[in-house]
Amino acid sequence: MSNTKISRLDSGAPDFLQTLDALLAFESSTDDAIEHAVADILRDVRARGDAAVIDCTRRFDRMDCASMVELELPRSVLDDAYASLSDAQRAALAEAADRVRLYHERQKQDSWEYAEADGTRLGQKVTPLDRVGLYVPGGRASYPSSVLMNAIPAKVAGVKELIMVVPTPGGERNPLVLAAAAITGVDRVFTIGGAQAVAALAYGTQTIPQVDKIVGPGNAYVASAKRRVFGTVGIDMVAGPSEVLVISDGHGNPDWVAMDLFAQAEHDELAQSILLCTDAGFLDRVHASIDRLLAEMPRRDTIAISLANRGALIKVRDLAEACDIANRIAPEHLEICTEDPRALVESIRHAGAMFLGHYSVEALGDYCAGPNHVLPTMRSARFSSPLGVYDFQKRTSILDISEEGAQKLGRIASVLAHGEGLQAHARSAEMRLKD
Amino acid sequence: MSNTKISRLDSGAPDFLQTLDALLAFESSTDDAIEHAVADILRDVRARGDAAVIDCTRRFDRMDCASMVELELPRSVLDDAYASLSDAQRAALAEAADRVRLYHERQKQDSWEYAEADGTRLGQKVTPLDRVGLYVPGGRASYPSSVLMNAIPAKVAGVKELIMVVPTPGGERNPLVLAAAAITGVDRVFTIGGAQAVAALAYGTQTIPQVDKIVGPGNAYVASAKRRVFGTVGIDMVAGPSEVLVISDGHGNPDWVAMDLFAQAEHDELAQSILLCTDAGFLDRVHASIDRLLAEMPRRDTIAISLANRGALIKVRDLAEACDIANRIAPEHLEICTEDPRALVESIRHAGAMFLGHYSVEALGDYCAGPNHVLPTMRSARFSSPLGVYDFQKRTSILDISEEGAQKLGRIASVLAHGEGLQAHARSAEMRLKD
Repeated sequence: MSNTKISRLDSGAPDFLQTLDALLAFESSTDDAIEHAVADILRDVRARGDAAVIDCTRRFDRMDCASMVELELPRSVLDDAYASLSDAQRAALAEAADRVRLYHERQKQDSWEYAEADGTRLGQKVTPLDRVGLYVPGGRASYPSSVLMNAIPAKVAGVKELIMVVPTPGGERNPLVLAAAAITGVDRVFTIGGAQAVAALAYGTQTIPQVDKIVGPGNAYVASAKRRVFGTVGIDMVAGPSEVLVISDGHGNPDWVAMDLFAQAEHDELAQSILLCTDAGFLDRVHASIDRLLAEMPRRDTIAISLANRGALIKVRDLAEACDIANRIAPEHLEICTEDPRALVESIRHAGAMFLGHYSVEALGDYCAGPNHVLPTMRSARFSSPLGVYDFQKRTSILDISEEGAQKLGRIASVLAHGEGLQAHARSAEMRLKD
Repeated sequence: MSNTKISRLDSGAPDFLQTLDALLAFESSTDDAIEHAVADILRDVRARGDAAVIDCTRRFDRMDCASMVELELPRSVLDDAYASLSDAQRAALAEAADRVRLYHERQKQDSWEYAEADGTRLGQKVTPLDRVGLYVPGGRASYPSSVLMNAIPAKVAGVKELIMVVPTPGGERNPLVLAAAAITGVDRVFTIGGAQAVAALAYGTQTIPQVDKIVGPGNAYVASAKRRVFGTVGIDMVAGPSEVLVISDGHGNPDWVAMDLFAQAEHDELAQSILLCTDAGFLDRVHASIDRLLAEMPRRDTIAISLANRGALIKVRDLAEACDIANRIAPEHLEICTEDPRALVESIRHAGAMFLGHYSVEALGDYCAGPNHVLPTMRSARFSSPLGVYDFQKRTSILDISEEGAQKLGRIASVLAHGEGLQAHARSAEMRLKD
């Protein structure tokens, strides 16, 4: 008899798809009070710069500071944080950083150009962003691994200046986060956070230079601020709760699967862990493992609520159906724990990351395998990608049209421009024609 | 004596940068009435589907329709539109489409994977989006070239279903737009528009399937609706007014430069045309050309207002300074009309597209050279790129970790997970360790 509450579904049930959709439904609500507070802070920082940031930081983070200088951490503080770690932590952080760098170097894109017979040359120039802001949350959700995953692709892309902001409420600093900043080559660190930090990066202040893009996770205030400054600067995605979907054919160790579901559920109560399995007996064994292992977990309360409200153990007809359901879910993380996981790769169209086989556990990807852990959530894997070097590069089209090329192209452009009623377009093309 | 009103600036003036920034400043205002109307329409379409779309279309587009079937154009209507064009128009459209396709095929990205010594394989799987919605405005700003520039990269990427929406107020259809849909292989066309069309594509209705991304330009209602559905579906950028920046060393034909400035200014009164030149005499000659040529332009009223309010002829010290100013502006279109345009390419870091030399006129790029004409506006070339095949592809990380690899990686992950207080993460990695 299983005790732990988690939905048990069967894909053969007549109402299965509605039940599944209800389980997946998540609406990131917008809170009017937060929206108004954020709008006020953005306006204030834009108008008063440093002074507004200092006021907010005194008020929200209880920091006793008089000037922005006090809110910037010198390089030596980062280096000291790195030196203060245990040997094991230092080694783990460095190895993880090396592996993440190695993987991301493969994502770098190069400029290209090609020539046509008449001498016209067309191409695309790829350049890094000049300056990027990296938001790192303070407190409970302050993860050094996030610093690695955001900073390394930016540096691999060639971003010249990477500015990190991290709130330190009451002055409390996280040495692992600062150490991660040290080894990834973050250029400047300010101990500010919230909407005021986003505003400072987006608009620039007397002390903080305007950046071109802001990346990194944050709370509802940070998310709202990022949405509002989008356009003035680039932003990465606004992430939803984290999700894992496991596909199993009944082989493997049920304890491993249970723990993988826990690893997602322990993030927060909204995190989502779902298992699809062709074998009803295996689902029972995983449920039993959940019952047995849950008590050992320090974050068991969070895990239990997450599994009860958002988790599911689902019996599916076969692996083909499992893939169909996976594509409908478009999960952030997909573990394929089957005897022949490669056989399913072609059938999966939407997923942030695929983990193949019993040893490809999500936690390895979260920290150190190499690929990025910033992944599309809430079905956005249908149209977006893991954070990568490409998010810190941009493209410029190159058009180098020869005199001869302009003859041929000018006639085409002229016809189409007249068709659109844009006569100056037509004339500027026609003026280059020789006859 | 020049008559046409346009700012004449000198980079040597003490207040030059403030004057330039004021000229560039453009705030896309949000209108409360529009915001509320759009929110209502989205809610209605989400709740009532087809019925709401039909109601809106009757009301806003004065269409006498009773069901969605009447609002879908069969393939034969598109083919008839193509057949109805003049031979010259058909040829121009086909040649433009071929060239745009050829260029964009170079942007296609492939999946990759690499193996490590212990058998671990890491990679990235690239897949097309399943289904994309293409918004095409009705009326004055209805451009067949936009259909080419949005539809072709989607099809090159491998998007299986491309659904176009185009309002036909009062039933009036644009044959060039429908012909462009025919030759680019658009799969379905609905004669709907506004926020109701965006909502239908984003949420799906009984007749219109939910898409994964919505691209294409639109008015303030469409822009607001796109911003609001972002997250449920992907969107392209919300574009600002179009801009051209011309860099000149005083060589070339002043009439050509004047007409290139007109070609931008004729779009609308907010369009921005700026010339940077090292030669004061050439600036005078361009100004004289503007005076002489303006009267001939059918859209002279729009051009005159655009040049007076947003245009500028700017004397710069040298070409190096011109490049600095260009990087500050980060223009959508940059024409480099100098004797050696290639010499400046390295110095330009931010531009949507660069047009090199006197024959690389923007109008050729707008229609048929090959590169996309959907480009980042309002300084967003600092962080974003031309529309491309990459906007219709997405990536999935592949992690295929060997048993041996899991030993090495598991130890690193365990250390870092404990450091972050995520014990289930640590345990799921540790469970794969052999000792």
